[in-house]
Amino acid sequence: MLDESAKGVFTIAVTPFLPDGALDLDSVGRMTDFYLEKGATGLTILGIMGEAGKLTAAESMAVVRAVTARAGVPVVVGVSAPGFAQMQALATEAMEAGAAGVMVAPTPALRNDDQIAGYYRNVAEILGPIPFVLQDFPLVTGVTIPTSVILRIVEDCPTMVMLKHEDWPGLDKISALRAASDAGARRISILCGNGGQFLPEEVARGADGAMTGFAFPEMMAGVVAAAEAGKMERARDIFDCYLPLVRFEAQPGLGLSVRKYILARRGAIAHATLRKPGAGLNAAGIAEVEALIARQDRRLAALG
Amino acid sequence: MLDESAKGVFTIAVTPFLPDGALDLDSVGRMTDFYLEKGATGLTILGIMGEAGKLTAAESMAVVRAVTARAGVPVVVGVSAPGFAQMQALATEAMEAGAAGVMVAPTPALRNDDQIAGYYRNVAEILGPIPFVLQDFPLVTGVTIPTSVILRIVEDCPTMVMLKHEDWPGLDKISALRAASDAGARRISILCGNGGQFLPEEVARGADGAMTGFAFPEMMAGVVAAAEAGKMERARDIFDCYLPLVRFEAQPGLGLSVRKYILARRGAIAHATLRKPGAGLNAAGIAEVEALIARQDRRLAALG
Amino acid sequence: MLDESAKGVFTIAVTPFLPDGALDLDSVGRMTDFYLEKGATGLTILGIMGEAGKLTAAESMAVVRAVTARAGVPVVVGVSAPGFAQMQALATEAMEAGAAGVMVAPTPALRNDDQIAGYYRNVAEILGPIPFVLQDFPLVTGVTIPTSVILRIVEDCPTMVMLKHEDWPGLDKISALRAASDAGARRISILCGNGGQFLPEEVARGADGAMTGFAFPEMMAGVVAAAEAGKMERARDIFDCYLPLVRFEAQPGLGLSVRKYILARRGAIAHATLRKPGAGLNAAGIAEVEALIARQDRRLAALG
Amino acid sequence: MLDESAKGVFTIAVTPFLPDGALDLDSVGRMTDFYLEKGATGLTILGIMGEAGKLTAAESMAVVRAVTARAGVPVVVGVSAPGFAQMQALATEAMEAGAAGVMVAPTPALRNDDQIAGYYRNVAEILGPIPFVLQDFPLVTGVTIPTSVILRIVEDCPTMVMLKHEDWPGLDKISALRAASDAGARRISILCGNGGQFLPEEVARGADGAMTGFAFPEMMAGVVAAAEAGKMERARDIFDCYLPLVRFEAQPGLGLSVRKYILARRGAIAHATLRKPGAGLNAAGIAEVEALIARQDRRLAALG
Repeated sequence: MLDESAKGVFTIAVTPFLPDGALDLDSVGRMTDFYLEKGATGLTILGIMGEAGKLTAAESMAVVRAVTARAGVPVVVGVSAPGFAQMQALATEAMEAGAAGVMVAPTPALRNDDQIAGYYRNVAEILGPIPFVLQDFPLVTGVTIPTSVILRIVEDCPTMVMLKHEDWPGLDKISALRAASDAGARRISILCGNGGQFLPEEVARGADGAMTGFAFPEMMAGVVAAAEAGKMERARDIFDCYLPLVRFEAQPGLGLSVRKYILARRGAIAHATLRKPGAGLNAAGIAEVEALIARQDRRLAALG
Repeated sequence: MLDESAKGVFTIAVTPFLPDGALDLDSVGRMTDFYLEKGATGLTILGIMGEAGKLTAAESMAVVRAVTARAGVPVVVGVSAPGFAQMQALATEAMEAGAAGVMVAPTPALRNDDQIAGYYRNVAEILGPIPFVLQDFPLVTGVTIPTSVILRIVEDCPTMVMLKHEDWPGLDKISALRAASDAGARRISILCGNGGQFLPEEVARGADGAMTGFAFPEMMAGVVAAAEAGKMERARDIFDCYLPLVRFEAQPGLGLSVRKYILARRGAIAHATLRKPGAGLNAAGIAEVEALIARQDRRLAALG
Repeated sequence: MLDESAKGVFTIAVTPFLPDGALDLDSVGRMTDFYLEKGATGLTILGIMGEAGKLTAAESMAVVRAVTARAGVPVVVGVSAPGFAQMQALATEAMEAGAAGVMVAPTPALRNDDQIAGYYRNVAEILGPIPFVLQDFPLVTGVTIPTSVILRIVEDCPTMVMLKHEDWPGLDKISALRAASDAGARRISILCGNGGQFLPEEVARGADGAMTGFAFPEMMAGVVAAAEAGKMERARDIFDCYLPLVRFEAQPGLGLSVRKYILARRGAIAHATLRKPGAGLNAAGIAEVEALIARQDRRLAALG
Repeated sequence: MLDESAKGVFTIAVTPFLPDGALDLDSVGRMTDFYLEKGATGLTILGIMGEAGKLTAAESMAVVRAVTARAGVPVVVGVSAPGFAQMQALATEAMEAGAAGVMVAPTPALRNDDQIAGYYRNVAEILGPIPFVLQDFPLVTGVTIPTSVILRIVEDCPTMVMLKHEDWPGLDKISALRAASDAGARRISILCGNGGQFLPEEVARGADGAMTGFAFPEMMAGVVAAAEAGKMERARDIFDCYLPLVRFEAQPGLGLSVRKYILARRGAIAHATLRKPGAGLNAAGIAEVEALIARQDRRLAALG
């Protein structure tokens, strides 16, 4: 079961598809192995970048089962849904299938502090004993959650054990949450998203690691390990080698096609296919990615 | 099968729940009978006001089956979904269960003409032969669909047979669509929503009727029948009797609790319950509704 | 100077233009007289429906001077601006020209309770002794202000003396604010907007009157006077006569062309012109308005 | 006068303030010199990052005069405004004061292709002979402008001579516009914003340079010069040295305080002050910026 001690790198997994758009369950196993080899201490599936909204309920459960059967690490399942009945159904099935916890983003209609806090009280009640991750991603959800409201949820909902942090800018939010737990609030796990774009600063501010899906997960593992060993300059050296590609993959919308192109190129999945209405990378985009990878390889070789 | 000749009143059905939030299938039959008695020529289920987003996939199909089994009129099923796989699954099951067609609102991310037209080409391809209703409801979806884009969809997608019109303001859009079909474009059915607030003007502009769920469906039936008989002043007389309550029920968010309160009061459903996070009408709201109904009764009696 | 005792009808004034789009200062005086004859106890100028955003700074001040020179009632000037320097400059000039207070809507970027409360603390500091109206209009600003935040502003900012209430739905907010002042919070004036669509219920809930610009201001005056005299049924009878037109004028965007058409027809302004990109009412719209006015005249005659 | 041949680096200038928030006109001259020394081929003032919305009309003109009096390069003035009268007044005064052209972002209310194209036809008509820049910045304006609509504006409005490109992702838009001009459409200047985050790819796709305000403008000058000389790898080497800081400065909201902190540190302006409601960088942010600059200095020294 997921708890507040979680740390390291929870990789956001993609969902592999065959060229015709069918679910590619064969690739799920290979991809799971790939993420673990590259340093994942956990996996997060069926998130926004996992094209969760494009799957039927049956397909979603097939992915959950394939991943939990293979991974020896905690698996978090995205269960955000327009309504609580769907959320409860998916969360219950996912936990029965071996998930360690679930992740819930705020529903886009929420517009003030009380509404957000009330929403998560409902979530916690409906999920019962299931531990959950609060996904704080204003760029996509349109919902801004102030630190004070996160702290209300920390107090109201003991089963909220982790923050997936991707507010932007968000560094001061990490500092404020850590100051609050130093002053006596329950200390939750904070893993950071946003494609890893601010990872060195985030761990220096007190984050416990990363929850993101950059196609070279060894970057996140390397940065987090170096930071934990107190080698901040080494962490930044590693980060800087990957940053030109991190930046390129962070383009909204387009980023997932970059990520899947690279994962297919690295053999983690068989095909770079996105389900409609998503589209693959065009020739110009592929050339840009290849140029960035070639330069990245050279810099990594020089870094040693 | 739904086609472009549909007209009259397609009532937007609520979804009845028991006081504990469980689906109230017993009430579904009673409610279906009620709508038919009050003049419905069709029914629309699992829309926004049907709390569709709060139902599990299994519950959704239970509602579809209960309504289609009872209604002798065409049933339209809302199948809007974040992804096409879910949309296809629900649409296919609904048609097998006896639905006459489905309804699809634009996904909120759409931001320009080409994106909207492209989205509906994808919808039409995925639905295959299933006839569908285009729901044009900018206040809720955030997507504005210009008349020119509706006409592109009319041309691109022969299975788009009806517009659920609830743009606001939207009267000129009806006129423009009718001018286009007079000039040779395919003539689709236009049924109007927005709680019926503009029904006399809408039918005068060329709409074929209403698709909305005001708790006194006899208003829509009466207005449409009078207008069709050429008695526009009579249509307005009927409309004006109900307008104070139409206006009150049209309050966003709150409106559904008003509607369910009245439907329960009229015996159409057993309980006024909304599923969480929805809430029922409070005492002040109930007093306001009762005052409006009392005045409405007097005016209707005076009208004769 | 505006204070918490303000009540009655503060009419939202339009800004009259000549057919070529130039400011029509001649009409400003006539319009001011018209509003006073129809029962205005105050005037609000340079609001959203006053096309304030389309005026240069010099034109804005010309309107302020023309209205304050003529009106013997308190004049509130809309001073919402992207920045505080502009707001301060306009507010200061307006007060020097004889305004009684100013009105400030929240800037659209505000996204949580602390941001909203902080924004109004800044506003109050910058305005110094100038009394101001908080405009609460989520449909247009995109900012939802919970009752608890209004009460924080009531406490933080003694110069916030009035709420322009146009949340929708918003009746429970009036009740909650009155319950708070009954329990000891400072009692502010509450005048209601939204085109007058809910005026009978609003005054019954505790509002002090209307601040809106419906083209028949005698409706608001009549409803408020009847309600104050304890004749709620009479208030509703008056309201119902006008409601079909109130509803028609409340169409967003289009509504201002309806309002200006009627004001020109009634002789309050010389021309119905809107400044670009606004447009006038087309022939179909004019016919609809005329039909509604003819019916309204008959109902008013029957009411006596 | 600005025309389609503009290229290089148009630096987005900040607006300097004294610690008490007053305009710091002394710093304007120094800042102008600084930008020119660092390679600016033009300047853009009164944009979003110039805190234009926080200035009074008089202050805006004081900034325009101070910059145009000093700069020997074309000066573009941001004139986006809620209404055309204000836009026209500011644009006319700015041109009289020596500006080379103006910049106009779409008004946030625009929601479809025809509305956007119509808006810019109005802009062009109102500006008359004044050349203007179309600012395409969906993240801030909320308006997505498809390539096809930009091409309509290119055709409709001969005075639209430049695109400030900051769609995100936006590389394919550059390629599409260049393909269109290769096929016969008028070729406009394309300068790219977004803090310079994608500059190497943008110039490779056909952009003419940068229009952005990163606090080390020599980065943009170096990348553009190297790319123009055909040395793409050199361009990327320069870019990569600055990228960790480019990324940090690109944080929305916070970024301007980073930029002003660095500009003050480099002596380009006297104080890092932002006008309210903006705030300066806190201690943690300053430490992060300093660490990034120290690493950047080392990498630049190593690059030679």
